[in-house]
Parts: sequence; C-alpha cells; structure tokens
Amino acid sequence: MNNTFAIGIDIGGTNTDMGLVRNDGKIMARKNLPTGAYTELEPYVRDIMGCVKALMDENSVAAIEGIGIGAPNGNFYTGCVDNAPNLTIKGVLNFEEEIHKYMDVPVLLSNDANAAAYGELVYGAAKGLDHFIMFTLGTGVGSGVVVDGKLVHGSTGGAGELGHNILVPHGRQCSCGRQGCLEAYTSARGIVKTFCDLRHDTPNYDGALKDVADAEVTSKMIGDAANAGDTLAIKTYEMTGDWLGLAMANAVTFSAPEAIFLMGGPANVGEPLLRPLRAAFDKYLLNIYQGSVDVRVSSLASNVVAILGAAALLKMPR
Amino acid sequence: MNNTFAIGIDIGGTNTDMGLVRNDGKIMARKNLPTGAYTELEPYVRDIMGCVKALMDENSVAAIEGIGIGAPNGNFYTGCVDNAPNLTIKGVLNFEEEIHKYMDVPVLLSNDANAAAYGELVYGAAKGLDHFIMFTLGTGVGSGVVVDGKLVHGSTGGAGELGHNILVPHGRQCSCGRQGCLEAYTSARGIVKTFCDLRHDTPNYDGALKDVADAEVTSKMIGDAANAGDTLAIKTYEMTGDWLGLAMANAVTFSAPEAIFLMGGPANVGEPLLRPLRAAFDKYLLNIYQGSVDVRVSSLASNVVAILGAAALLKMPR
Repeated sequence: MNNTFAIGIDIGGTNTDMGLVRNDGKIMARKNLPTGAYTELEPYVRDIMGCVKALMDENSVAAIEGIGIGAPNGNFYTGCVDNAPNLTIKGVLNFEEEIHKYMDVPVLLSNDANAAAYGELVYGAAKGLDHFIMFTLGTGVGSGVVVDGKLVHGSTGGAGELGHNILVPHGRQCSCGRQGCLEAYTSARGIVKTFCDLRHDTPNYDGALKDVADAEVTSKMIGDAANAGDTLAIKTYEMTGDWLGLAMANAVTFSAPEAIFLMGGPANVGEPLLRPLRAAFDKYLLNIYQGSVDVRVSSLASNVVAILGAAALLKMPR
Repeated sequence: MNNTFAIGIDIGGTNTDMGLVRNDGKIMARKNLPTGAYTELEPYVRDIMGCVKALMDENSVAAIEGIGIGAPNGNFYTGCVDNAPNLTIKGVLNFEEEIHKYMDVPVLLSNDANAAAYGELVYGAAKGLDHFIMFTLGTGVGSGVVVDGKLVHGSTGGAGELGHNILVPHGRQCSCGRQGCLEAYTSARGIVKTFCDLRHDTPNYDGALKDVADAEVTSKMIGDAANAGDTLAIKTYEMTGDWLGLAMANAVTFSAPEAIFLMGGPANVGEPLLRPLRAAFDKYLLNIYQGSVDVRVSSLASNVVAILGAAALLKMPR
C-alpha cells in the first residue's frame, strides 16, 4: 500500500507545532513557529505555509491529503478561529481562506481538545470506541466528546467545553468570568491555587515548596513534591482528583461512554492524581453505570497527540 | 398516501397508557392498564397485547409497523426494562421476547425521557433540529439528548440521565443514594422539599398553603399558589428555576444544542418557573453560547408526548 501524508498543526498561545504525518500515524518531521511573535494572520499563515512546504520538500512528499489544525476556539464548521483570548492575533481568523491562497487542499480546524480526542480515536487507545470523552488538563481544561464514533461539534461548533461546566455553584472565580467552573479547580492554575490556599492555611508547612513564592509555584512542582511524599502536595492532588472525578461522573450521565481519557501535564503526575480521581469517580458515579466506564490516561504523548489529532481531523466523516 | 399505524406504550409506575398512532402523529384511540396491579411480566404483557389487539380491531387496523415502549430504565439495545425501582414487576424484563409470543412486529424500548425527546423530534417542535436536549420534570427528572439528529444511547443504552448530574456537591440527599443530584432539587418531590424547608424557616408564613401538612403538599399546589402571588411559593419556583437554569447551562457545554425543551407537571406552572429559569440560564451560560440556545416548553401535551414518543422509536435509524 502506498503511504499518504497530511499536515497536522497545533496552535498554542506560545508555540505553533507542525508535523508531517504519515497515514499510519507516524510523525515524519516537525517544525515550529513562535505564535506570540505574530499580530496579523497574513504573515503568520505565510510562515506556516513556508514550514509546510519545507516539511514536504525535505521529506520528498509531493502531495498531501490536507491540513488539519487544532487551535483554541477553532471552529470545525467555519474553518475559523473565533476570538481566542490566548492568541496575540485577534478577531475571527479565517485560516481556511488564507491557506487556500497558497495551497488548494482541504483545511479542517477544530479546538485543540476536540482534536486531541479525535487523535486518540484515530491513532490511540480509543481506536474502535463508539463513545468516549477526553479531558485535557493544561493552562485550561478542555474536552472532546465522541458519540457514535463521531466527534460532537454541536449546533455552533462549540460543543465539548466541559472545562466550563460549573462544578461548584458560586465557587471559585474562573477566567471565563463565571464562578465554579471545573477549569478553576483542575487546570494547572487551579491546582496551584489549591496548593497555595492549603499552604496559606498551614502556617507550619515545612515541605519542599516552603520557600517558593505563590507566583512561582507550578503544578509540575506540586506533582513532583507529591510523588516525593509532601503532605500538602498530596492533599492538593487528592482534592484535584476529587473534583475531576465528580466532573467525569457527571459527564457519564450525558453520553454513557465506554471510557474517559485524560491528558496534559497534570495527568502525567500519575498516582497522586489518579488514585483519588478513580476513588472519586467510583464514589460519584450513578449506580447504573458502575463498572461500565474505564478511566485512563491518554496513550499518546501530549507533544504528539496534538499534531496527530489535528491531522486526524482530515479523516473525520463530514 | 396510505396511512400506516404503530402502537405507542408509556409505562409508568401507576399507569400504562397505550395508543394507536397514525403516521402523521395523530393518536387514533387509547387504552389504559393499572401497572401497579401486576407483579409478573407474563400476565402484564398478555393484558397489554389484549389492549393492542382491541385498539387495532376497534379501529379496523389490520397491521401495525411495530410497538414502541417508553419505560423507566427501558434499554434500547436489549429490549428490556432493567430493574426499574418504580415498577412492581421486578428484575430484568424482556418485553421484546414476551411480546413476540403474541405478535411478530418490531418492538423498541427506551427510557421514558428519551422517548419524549424522540417524540418531540419526530412529531413536535424539535422537528428538523440536529442538536437539542429534553428535560422531563416529574416524580424524577429525566432527560433525552439528541446529537446530529440521533438520540444518544451511549455504550450501555443508559445515556441521558441528567437528572442524576450532581449539581451541588455534598448537597441534598437523592433517591439514587448519592447527594446533590439535579433530581433532588427540581423533581416534583424536590420542589415540595424546597417549599417545606422555606416554610419551616418562615414561622410567620400566612399564605395559601399554611394549613397543608408537609406530606400533603404537591408541586402543583405550590405552582397554583405561586401563580396566585404566594411569596414562599414564588420563592420556591425562583430557586427551582435557578437550579434548573444552571443544570441546563452546564448541559450546553456538552453538546452545544440549538434548543433545550422542558416538559412535565412542574414545567406547566409557567412564568413562576420560566422567568427565573431563563434568567439563571443566561447568567450561567458560557459566553460563547450566548444567544445560540432556545429554552422552551415542549409543544406536545405530556399525556400525548409519551405515547407519540414511544411510537416514534420505531422511526429511529438503527
């Protein structure tokens, strides 16, 4: 069988990662651009397309199936990025139109978490599953929902924003302007807040992070401290796991999935998060679903899944 | 065009409503059985099939397309009712098999709220919608979710149990054994509890329901009192609307529906519920969805939708 190729692009606030993806899911080569250096779409896409051309030329690939893009607020229906707060290029960005000035291939966009879910379906451990949900933990909390083997986009293209499910009514302030969202508790920032709040309430705390200022603490540091036995760090991930387990149990009442996947930095902390998460999930799960849902960490490395997921968008039934 | 006919059966804990449904959604005739009088499946189905035969004979209908059944814990995949707590007939009830002893027609089962959602899609105001969610308020709170024009059953057949979404962590005791479920707040029982709690905390309450014992209060009475200006009854529905609006806003983050429908007794209270519900929905809805979701009461009378919805199951793509 002849191989085919596609380009997968993961647009983040800081970096733009591009990869040439073979149809079997192997990333043949990668390029990178600093997203934050751009304030206009035209030069940004010009440079992206320079990288795409180089990826093809350097690997003797004459034709690609298309370009898939995972981006914050990426809209599958319109091919646009709609006013993404984390991007330095503002407004409604029509990537499809702009890319077509350079190359006449299919261009598909979706938000980054949806793309990750689709990457897991096409290339990862979700292969063959009809119903699953992906939670991505990072600066924010994203999600992608697969129902009947298809990614749910909804009527607007904006489906799968479970990070903004209100978990605790009138709870913590969220960056979206509302209160109590899952993201306010289980994003990297939320985890740091939980730790700093606990530390503030524990004047005799004498652990590994005692001399790190609030603004310098990262969820990774807390994860390392938890794995090294730090009591407050362990407590932080216990609380995080409890919130996330509740959110996952709630999500099950919607689509009764076979599995829930988790990815992103905080998910890589391992047992300090996963043990309380699984306990909470079991505790909060409605009896009729008991035993029917697997909770697991994504099978794909997070620097791989974003590119694979973006490329996988091209394989989505339309 | 020749008319075709189907049987729709709505199985409730108290009554079993059966109707002969014409393909244009007209219910030609109805029969009724007292569900609670049965403890075994065989005589129950025998009597149901007696009614089906009578409905056909009395209306000179020689053949039907099939029998659709909406029932608590009805499973679309298995054709069984699985251990429904509200039924006097216990265990896993294989309706499909039992009915086939009498008549060789397609038999399709689903839970009652899913059937209601499907009835709204096929015969009601959701006709032509790709994405919507139905909430049914009654003894419990049920829901049915339509994604891409199809009812979501999930991996087990148990999708769409939004009544058991945990709305308030560690909140009110729910009949499912857990705490804080939407159902504990916005079912008929939940509404009565809210009112009785408020009345308990208001010793000088002097309204229409001041002499009605807690155990005698119904959500209908509270609705009537609210419509007549009773302050505590109004407050009760304000709180109910706030909880339900939050639950609906949360549901939107999943599937980005075009509309959310509401049906059942408490929904018929009208403005005392709908005004605070719409205000809460707007308040809790994530900004990206603002203006994209209609909240409305079902267009079908609740004694009609259950039968139509059950019959509509036969039209579901499989």
